[in-house]
Amino acid sequence: MRPPIDLSLYLVTDEAQCRSRGRTTRETVLAAVDGGATCVQLRAKGTDGGSFLAEVLDIAEAVGRRVPVIVNDRVDVLLAARELGAPVAGVHLGQSDLPVSVVRRLIGEEALIGLSAATPAQLRAAEGGGACDYVGIGTVRATRTKTNAPAGLGVDGVGALAALTALPAVAIGGIAIDDLPGLRAAGLEGAAVVSAICLAEDPRDAAARLREAWEGGGPA
Amino acid sequence: MRPPIDLSLYLVTDEAQCRSRGRTTRETVLAAVDGGATCVQLRAKGTDGGSFLAEVLDIAEAVGRRVPVIVNDRVDVLLAARELGAPVAGVHLGQSDLPVSVVRRLIGEEALIGLSAATPAQLRAAEGGGACDYVGIGTVRATRTKTNAPAGLGVDGVGALAALTALPAVAIGGIAIDDLPGLRAAGLEGAAVVSAICLAEDPRDAAARLREAWEGGGPA
Repeated sequence: MRPPIDLSLYLVTDEAQCRSRGRTTRETVLAAVDGGATCVQLRAKGTDGGSFLAEVLDIAEAVGRRVPVIVNDRVDVLLAARELGAPVAGVHLGQSDLPVSVVRRLIGEEALIGLSAATPAQLRAAEGGGACDYVGIGTVRATRTKTNAPAGLGVDGVGALAALTALPAVAIGGIAIDDLPGLRAAGLEGAAVVSAICLAEDPRDAAARLREAWEGGGPA
Repeated sequence: MRPPIDLSLYLVTDEAQCRSRGRTTRETVLAAVDGGATCVQLRAKGTDGGSFLAEVLDIAEAVGRRVPVIVNDRVDVLLAARELGAPVAGVHLGQSDLPVSVVRRLIGEEALIGLSAATPAQLRAAEGGGACDYVGIGTVRATRTKTNAPAGLGVDGVGALAALTALPAVAIGGIAIDDLPGLRAAGLEGAAVVSAICLAEDPRDAAARLREAWEGGGPA
């Protein structure tokens, strides 16, 4: 079966944001893991499969034995990376991606599946069949990372949704460091961040401060 | 091993073109197969995996036992459709998609792999390892279907490339009915068309005339 996943500080990559700070995605991920990120989701919407696979192989080799590396959406990229021996942990699916039940049959019992959910019905569906390992609940605050994301649910809204599911839940969407104590108090198992690390001046330092805030030290 | 594939009249779908004629992709494919299309590649760049899988399932159920249904790019969609019992025949890959050698390991020996190739080096690579079942050579004529396609090679240029490979070759890219006799004489095993069917007033009739032209009757 799957190993447990520490969702505490879950980095979701955004290549354009990293590039706007003069860094590669790989550099950003390495710095964030050094700083304390506990897992990494590689996301490359609009990128061809070959380029995405190359990035997944490269970054998984760099950090995949330290923290779980999760592939966004492209189950075939996960399968190809695994076939080539890279330490990839699983796949994260959105509501409009391939269905969780079929993906579980394709990737077997050893790999993780995360699912984005934003409503009680989606959370109930995520629990069905036992195929899903965690849910990503959001958006916490309105964000520009995903143009099709719903308006922000707020810390309280995300917490209320998290209370509806027995699955480990990570909050996502426009999360700032000041949100972390509230999210943890509301029962979330972690916070997923994009711009708080990818757009940070120093992603290692940003990850360290976010992790500290999550662990209870509070923002500096 | 894989069954042989009749590449003679190879329809590649374009949803926007079908819609511009007031038809669904499914309606267009059914009409084209009724008219004589010998295989169908479903292409849905920019569509989410879930929607693309639904389309593949729907169209494969409708025509997949009459002609081979090939999935463009998304190996995971092929695998999911197969897992769900749909009669899908294989996948078509571009040069920037997942590598053929890895895809063969993921999909096994029963499914077809086609690869787009536009240069002698790409054709040589396609033959390596024996994983590829056919190549798509183009662009024959400059086309607006793919904005990143190279300038047209012409019938002679495509024929010269086809002569370099032992793999079955289908020409693609801006092909009109008058090109078919020349392409066949140049050693191609078939012609892949998009707009000649998707934008046709009557896709069944268009397919029938294209097939007749390919078989040697020449254009009406």
